[in-house]
Amino acid sequence: MATEQPQRLASIDSSLAARLPSYSTVLFEAKTAKGLTFEQIAQRLGRSEVAVAAIFYGQASASPEDAQALSELLGVPVDAFRDAVLGFPDRGRAGPMPPVEPLIYRLYEIVQNYGYAFKAVINEKFGDGIMSAICFNSKVEKEVDDQGQSWVVITLKGKWLPFTRF
Amino acid sequence: MATEQPQRLASIDSSLAARLPSYSTVLFEAKTAKGLTFEQIAQRLGRSEVAVAAIFYGQASASPEDAQALSELLGVPVDAFRDAVLGFPDRGRAGPMPPVEPLIYRLYEIVQNYGYAFKAVINEKFGDGIMSAICFNSKVEKEVDDQGQSWVVITLKGKWLPFTRF
Amino acid sequence: MATEQPQRLASIDSSLAARLPSYSTVLFEAKTAKGLTFEQIAQRLGRSEVAVAAIFYGQASASPEDAQALSELLGVPVDAFRDAVLGFPDRGRAGPMPPVEPLIYRLYEIVQNYGYAFKAVINEKFGDGIMSAICFNSKVEKEVDDQGQSWVVITLKGKWLPFTRF
Amino acid sequence: MATEQPQRLASIDSSLAARLPSYSTVLFEAKTAKGLTFEQIAQRLGRSEVAVAAIFYGQASASPEDAQALSELLGVPVDAFRDAVLGFPDRGRAGPMPPVEPLIYRLYEIVQNYGYAFKAVINEKFGDGIMSAICFNSKVEKEVDDQGQSWVVITLKGKWLPFTRF
Amino acid sequence: MATEQPQRLASIDSSLAARLPSYSTVLFEAKTAKGLTFEQIAQRLGRSEVAVAAIFYGQASASPEDAQALSELLGVPVDAFRDAVLGFPDRGRAGPMPPVEPLIYRLYEIVQNYGYAFKAVINEKFGDGIMSAICFNSKVEKEVDDQGQSWVVITLKGKWLPFTRF
Amino acid sequence: MATEQPQRLASIDSSLAARLPSYSTVLFEAKTAKGLTFEQIAQRLGRSEVAVAAIFYGQASASPEDAQALSELLGVPVDAFRDAVLGFPDRGRAGPMPPVEPLIYRLYEIVQNYGYAFKAVINEKFGDGIMSAICFNSKVEKEVDDQGQSWVVITLKGKWLPFTRF
Amino acid sequence: MATEQPQRLASIDSSLAARLPSYSTVLFEAKTAKGLTFEQIAQRLGRSEVAVAAIFYGQASASPEDAQALSELLGVPVDAFRDAVLGFPDRGRAGPMPPVEPLIYRLYEIVQNYGYAFKAVINEKFGDGIMSAICFNSKVEKEVDDQGQSWVVITLKGKWLPFTRF
Amino acid sequence: MATEQPQRLASIDSSLAARLPSYSTVLFEAKTAKGLTFEQIAQRLGRSEVAVAAIFYGQASASPEDAQALSELLGVPVDAFRDAVLGFPDRGRAGPMPPVEPLIYRLYEIVQNYGYAFKAVINEKFGDGIMSAICFNSKVEKEVDDQGQSWVVITLKGKWLPFTRF
Amino acid sequence: MATEQPQRLASIDSSLAARLPSYSTVLFEAKTAKGLTFEQIAQRLGRSEVAVAAIFYGQASASPEDAQALSELLGVPVDAFRDAVLGFPDRGRAGPMPPVEPLIYRLYEIVQNYGYAFKAVINEKFGDGIMSAICFNSKVEKEVDDQGQSWVVITLKGKWLPFTRF
Amino acid sequence: MATEQPQRLASIDSSLAARLPSYSTVLFEAKTAKGLTFEQIAQRLGRSEVAVAAIFYGQASASPEDAQALSELLGVPVDAFRDAVLGFPDRGRAGPMPPVEPLIYRLYEIVQNYGYAFKAVINEKFGDGIMSAICFNSKVEKEVDDQGQSWVVITLKGKWLPFTRF
Repeated sequence: MATEQPQRLASIDSSLAARLPSYSTVLFEAKTAKGLTFEQIAQRLGRSEVAVAAIFYGQASASPEDAQALSELLGVPVDAFRDAVLGFPDRGRAGPMPPVEPLIYRLYEIVQNYGYAFKAVINEKFGDGIMSAICFNSKVEKEVDDQGQSWVVITLKGKWLPFTRF
Repeated sequence: MATEQPQRLASIDSSLAARLPSYSTVLFEAKTAKGLTFEQIAQRLGRSEVAVAAIFYGQASASPEDAQALSELLGVPVDAFRDAVLGFPDRGRAGPMPPVEPLIYRLYEIVQNYGYAFKAVINEKFGDGIMSAICFNSKVEKEVDDQGQSWVVITLKGKWLPFTRF
Repeated sequence: MATEQPQRLASIDSSLAARLPSYSTVLFEAKTAKGLTFEQIAQRLGRSEVAVAAIFYGQASASPEDAQALSELLGVPVDAFRDAVLGFPDRGRAGPMPPVEPLIYRLYEIVQNYGYAFKAVINEKFGDGIMSAICFNSKVEKEVDDQGQSWVVITLKGKWLPFTRF
Repeated sequence: MATEQPQRLASIDSSLAARLPSYSTVLFEAKTAKGLTFEQIAQRLGRSEVAVAAIFYGQASASPEDAQALSELLGVPVDAFRDAVLGFPDRGRAGPMPPVEPLIYRLYEIVQNYGYAFKAVINEKFGDGIMSAICFNSKVEKEVDDQGQSWVVITLKGKWLPFTRF
Repeated sequence: MATEQPQRLASIDSSLAARLPSYSTVLFEAKTAKGLTFEQIAQRLGRSEVAVAAIFYGQASASPEDAQALSELLGVPVDAFRDAVLGFPDRGRAGPMPPVEPLIYRLYEIVQNYGYAFKAVINEKFGDGIMSAICFNSKVEKEVDDQGQSWVVITLKGKWLPFTRF
Repeated sequence: MATEQPQRLASIDSSLAARLPSYSTVLFEAKTAKGLTFEQIAQRLGRSEVAVAAIFYGQASASPEDAQALSELLGVPVDAFRDAVLGFPDRGRAGPMPPVEPLIYRLYEIVQNYGYAFKAVINEKFGDGIMSAICFNSKVEKEVDDQGQSWVVITLKGKWLPFTRF
Repeated sequence: MATEQPQRLASIDSSLAARLPSYSTVLFEAKTAKGLTFEQIAQRLGRSEVAVAAIFYGQASASPEDAQALSELLGVPVDAFRDAVLGFPDRGRAGPMPPVEPLIYRLYEIVQNYGYAFKAVINEKFGDGIMSAICFNSKVEKEVDDQGQSWVVITLKGKWLPFTRF
Repeated sequence: MATEQPQRLASIDSSLAARLPSYSTVLFEAKTAKGLTFEQIAQRLGRSEVAVAAIFYGQASASPEDAQALSELLGVPVDAFRDAVLGFPDRGRAGPMPPVEPLIYRLYEIVQNYGYAFKAVINEKFGDGIMSAICFNSKVEKEVDDQGQSWVVITLKGKWLPFTRF
Repeated sequence: MATEQPQRLASIDSSLAARLPSYSTVLFEAKTAKGLTFEQIAQRLGRSEVAVAAIFYGQASASPEDAQALSELLGVPVDAFRDAVLGFPDRGRAGPMPPVEPLIYRLYEIVQNYGYAFKAVINEKFGDGIMSAICFNSKVEKEVDDQGQSWVVITLKGKWLPFTRF
Repeated sequence: MATEQPQRLASIDSSLAARLPSYSTVLFEAKTAKGLTFEQIAQRLGRSEVAVAAIFYGQASASPEDAQALSELLGVPVDAFRDAVLGFPDRGRAGPMPPVEPLIYRLYEIVQNYGYAFKAVINEKFGDGIMSAICFNSKVEKEVDDQGQSWVVITLKGKWLPFTRF
């Protein structure tokens, strides 16, 4: 076995697959077989890594062009994930809430601890409304500080939607 | 009543106050009486608005210097929120989870829908670990796009913590 | 006691009041004292009855003009419900979910039974997105059919928000 | 792949199918194979799109005439969905509550935020009772406003049922 | 203390009272002070005992005539329970569900064990619909069998509501 | 297809069958094949329809004589539902609680709304104890009133069990 | 302070008292003031210690004779706990379920681990039915084994109730 | 079919089997095939019926000698339930909590109603500690009283464990 | 305010105090007034810091000697926390489970992630049984590694209790 | 069967396996077939037993070297558990929370009872922050005291993470 650390790849197991659309398994298996990261796939599709991973988990739509590109890149016939393109995602069922996965729990904890602080700051800055989670995008970046420590930077960007007066 | 829209201010009502430390009420009432936004208070303290709001909600510590500055700015004796300075926050109890407040729910929904996508992208970029929610900071910014639409931009930045091999 | 049925009025009791902002009690008591229906108040404010009731339950904002009008109509000083005007509603906490109140439960049951049907029809008609509950309005109307039977008609109207491609 | 956006169709995946009667899968697959929308099927049956989608999700009854029409339209033998016609729907199990799907959650949120407002307005207008969710119909319409923005309009219409005095 | 068993009376304690409207306490205390059973009060009002008890627990409306009669019988001014007459009950919050009280739990258990059996029998007898719990009445009777054993007989009678075809 | 409405029959789908003993499927399928209602089967067995339906859902025992009669009536070998006769029912798991099925929910709602009223009335009439749900029987009847409206009448009859003094 | 270990006494604190009827506080405080154990009180009343403790926690009825004896023993006027005598216990609300108190949790765990074993053994020995928890008594005894180890022995004795055939 | 009531035997259905280790099915099927009660098996093993039933439900360990005896008695090769002997039980998952089975629920209700009474009595008799549910045994006995009524007597006996002072 | 960081002290706020016995507030306030850490109090009592903190939170017993020492150290009359000495702790209600406090959640997460690993390792090392949480002690230590990083070391030590064969 | 007690080994059954990644079954079966304890495997890998068991339950990563060693030791091709090496664990789903397994529940109970005590002691000793559960290790040891009693000693060691000031 090589001394160099191989690129590790996100994959899904049968216990998770049961919660996801069946094309998720197809896509993840092809991705692992090709040894591709989400970064590489995202570059090919011209989309955010987060969005591309969300397609794989059945949480986002793929356009016909995305499907064509995925099909070529992964060597899977377009038809195998037709539902991801022609159907509509049935979102929100990938994992339990509250999350039990430590990485995802930390995000949940940020909402739990700082939720009202975000609300107060956003309300004072924007008025009475919400940040859309639909008209929304997100990215994940890596920063390394002066001491060589890595930091994860997640940007959540959503359109401001004021409550309608009626 | 003036035709110009007055600055609206985050405040807490008795139904929320019962979940928070008693100094929360003191701080919010003084803030409203002085007509101060979190942005103004944050500038005075040299801290993030999110962190300052979190202090008000009992979710973050105030340093002795913060307490001194808050006391002067709000006209409240330091002793009135001594627990916020000398005690330790009992975090996570400000609101129910899942959140019922629409603004906070949207953040929760982002975790629900994109949690595994974040995990997959972060794992491939950083390895097996988590983004810390403790060694962490956050800010809220406003962007206005070409069509004059406002966007909320929340940045979550946490130190990368790899799982220890043992 | 009069043979004619008196106009009955929505009110809140102490067991519900504990979940609501304190101005809710002020407003409801004044409304009962004046013998006003939400329809009458809504006409005076030029707003929907649903929105006006939502203000009373602490679920919607009142503009300075609304506050002025409410103050005059109800004989309550504007200051008594300042938080409803200058603060921001802390929505979603009026009642338990699932609802235990039969009238509200029926609405919940409609979501439970027809939720996926609504989703399927809306998706096919509009694409991948949601109906906004923020950029939203609603009204309640009464219809009487040929046999003299009354029907409740609730209209939910929300802006279409397509998921952003990112 | 065509440059024109193909008509996307609601479909169900195995993870959802496990919660539904087995004829749901049969009907959805035939619908996709024929490329039919719920609007087209509803026109053929002379019923509301919402009701037709509800039949597909096992949430509503089909009459013998509906079954005959569906059989012809979808090219599926009537016998394949006999339970939808001769049996009785076992309603309410299509998805989890609270809903995790963003589109359905928005409807739930409307009940959460405006439930008591609806109750108050309906009580004052009709008396002590409920809007039936059984003797009930519903439709979904699309409106486009002056700025070309689309709005979803959902109408919920239920018979008024006063509490019996006993 | 008398050797004869005194008539015991249903009452409410502070731990239950907090879940009920404030007039519940008024009514129950007056009832105990007067030593009246629900049977006696129901006879006076010409209503079912179950309905009368439901008024006391804030689960049913009282008509102006009921209020007048209650006021005279209990020696309480009508105004003390004005909300029970002019307001609208906020039903369903008297106790926790699942019930923890053994008597109430047995009723819940009947629904749990025989719910689908009731549904199957009712469906075959009446079609696709429900028994209304609104257009509804109920009574409790005592039967003594040949061996001198007492039996509780609860009758639930609700109007049949077929699902509307739409 | 006949113009006359065919007799519709209660049946179970795979999504419900997974919660029930395997003989439930056998019995329901035979019942549908024979076109028998629970009323017809109950007459043959000399038992209540509710009890017979409960046997089918695995919620009640069948005696050897019942088994013999069912076997003959349904054309199923006795051995196919041996567990229903020789084993002991594992009750209470047919459906989720709170019920999501509208018909069953209405029964649950009656317990939720009138539970304490039933308790108060029964306590005053019988003393401190419960109505047994074990030493218990139940029937469903149809009544048609003067206006031709159908009413469902459910009778719950249980032995009175006083709390033992110890 | 004495070297001899003083007799420790069960008592209730304000956090528990809020879940109990108000007479619980009265009784416990008098018991502590008099320095009485439940064993001593039970002997005086000629009842089981478990039953007597249950009266104190509002989970069992006291007869007029019990009340007289308690009044004399504790030096509290009978009227102070009139509801315990003339009213009816509102059982099951003393503590949360699942229990968080370790001693009570162990009893819960026994039901969790051995519940089906008890059912199987009881069914085979008695038939299809239940052990009554109403027509029921219980006692707690102490046994010391050969090595001087103490054992707690709880006896649960309930009348056998077979399911009625109907 | 014989006029004499056949011995009924506890068995498990597929819906329960899915929660249990796979050897549970093997053991129960062999037990039914051999027509053995737990009493008969327990006598052969020299153990309590409750413990033997617990082995069958995967809630207790079998010693190698138990396994040998079970194998001979049931005609099943020892290897078929090797995990019950060499592995360690994964306890507590046989049924849902709160229990929905009426027999098991009654035991749960005893804990719910009398939990604090047991705690108070045990604390006063033994001090601050718990009754062990591990160093524990239990038995079920049948008593018939003077009127010929059957009573179930369950004895729970656990070692007293005082909280360690540290 | 001094430039040196003052010793911060654990304290409780009114929102937490409502879950705890009333003497908790007394003890914490006296501790803060005296400026004492748990380490200092523990040294004085000759007990573990964890145990002493548990007494303050109402989760552990204090001996008469502990009470005497606490009284002297904190300047509070022994009588003010008599229940902590003479009564019995009502454990497990200090905070919600799952914990929302980040520090406590991490301990919960360790149980969630490593629970089965602990069980497997302990079972293989000790047999079939549990580590007692009653006959138990615990301590918290601080270690500083070569890079000057601090580590928290929590030791959980419980007596091994094998399941009794019965 | 041998008189000497055979080494018992942790294993997983199908009911648990469904919650775990599929390689868990592969690893456990090979471990049982080879008769290896976690202690033996851990020695071979040079890792903690807890960590090795966590790999088997899908809760920890295996390095390529671990995989190579496991493959040789267990006689399983590396490819059979490739996901454990190249993928990323999906942690936290092995068992239900709150735990129902008695051994794991005791650990949970320690968090429930002593959580705030740990927080208070750690806060005073380290400041405002948490003990990491990621940068973390743990071990299980056996101690035998003077009376020959066995004690389980679990050490939890996590890096101290102070909350960042921002």
